[in-house]
Amino acid sequence: MISARELAERRRQVADLFARTGIVLTAVEKEAIEIADFGLGKFEETGLGVLVYVNTDRVCAKELAMLPRQTCPEHRHPSVRGRPGKEETFRCRSGSVSVYVPGPATPDPAARPPKGREKTYTVFHEVRLLPGEQYTLSPDTLHWFQAGPEGAVVSEFSTTSTDEADVFTDPEIQRMTKVEGA
Amino acid sequence: MISARELAERRRQVADLFARTGIVLTAVEKEAIEIADFGLGKFEETGLGVLVYVNTDRVCAKELAMLPRQTCPEHRHPSVRGRPGKEETFRCRSGSVSVYVPGPATPDPAARPPKGREKTYTVFHEVRLLPGEQYTLSPDTLHWFQAGPEGAVVSEFSTTSTDEADVFTDPEIQRMTKVEGA
Repeated sequence: MISARELAERRRQVADLFARTGIVLTAVEKEAIEIADFGLGKFEETGLGVLVYVNTDRVCAKELAMLPRQTCPEHRHPSVRGRPGKEETFRCRSGSVSVYVPGPATPDPAARPPKGREKTYTVFHEVRLLPGEQYTLSPDTLHWFQAGPEGAVVSEFSTTSTDEADVFTDPEIQRMTKVEGA
Repeated sequence: MISARELAERRRQVADLFARTGIVLTAVEKEAIEIADFGLGKFEETGLGVLVYVNTDRVCAKELAMLPRQTCPEHRHPSVRGRPGKEETFRCRSGSVSVYVPGPATPDPAARPPKGREKTYTVFHEVRLLPGEQYTLSPDTLHWFQAGPEGAVVSEFSTTSTDEADVFTDPEIQRMTKVEGA
């Protein structure tokens, strides 16, 4: 749950981060930025700014904005209506981001799960992305990611996005952010 | 047909245009930029710089670079192996680009087909895109596009790209650029 005032402020913050990365948005797009707090009410810790460019029944492209050390919590994209789950490519545009996937746990990782929620993080193989680097994730694969100390802008190229079908490891997470009074 | 020297120079030119638009590429990506002259040997007139970020059997994302007034010639993306043709979204990142599709011819259009090849252009409904604006093209729809006087960088989000299956209106066009001695 966030207030309408915080929503507006966060949208400006995210639009500024996109602008500093050289990404031009229309006025309508700036107002359409999604501020996802995943229902935990601690946006700076667990959250994501999302602008969906296009999401048809075949293709999706988004721009993701992350504050310093902000985490997108662990989840996977299962099959939906008989179609294979979402396939995603993350491309780092500015800052840095560490993506965690199944595999041998990386010693001395760049990121740690948010405090108090450690039990809801189960994969620890690190793929660290700097600007110009990218990683393609197979469908239905558990993953979470966290921005480095300077935040991050990450482009996501994928098959159709059905956020409401995402399966989060943390049972308290609600993918759809509630806005007070909305 | 272009020379290996021209290929290297054009790649540098395209990488510079991407850099000025704020797009960071790895060294390997800079060397992978495709310089498409469509077999006409007049790259500045009919051509495209292309960097493929990802092209799986479901999703494709590319960055396109266009010199001032450079044209990507008229073509369509037919069904391939029983799958619907490529669905494309073009998003203008810098400069400007005019996309032409079927529909009422736009009076006083921003672009004209390259001289001497007018007969191979048949659709003239204009969609002009400035930075932050985008357009989604349905599969198998004829289209061509031309950059404005300052050139353009255009992001393309699409289903799988099978360039070799593209159907060009101009029978002299060869999609795959030949490099001398290669």
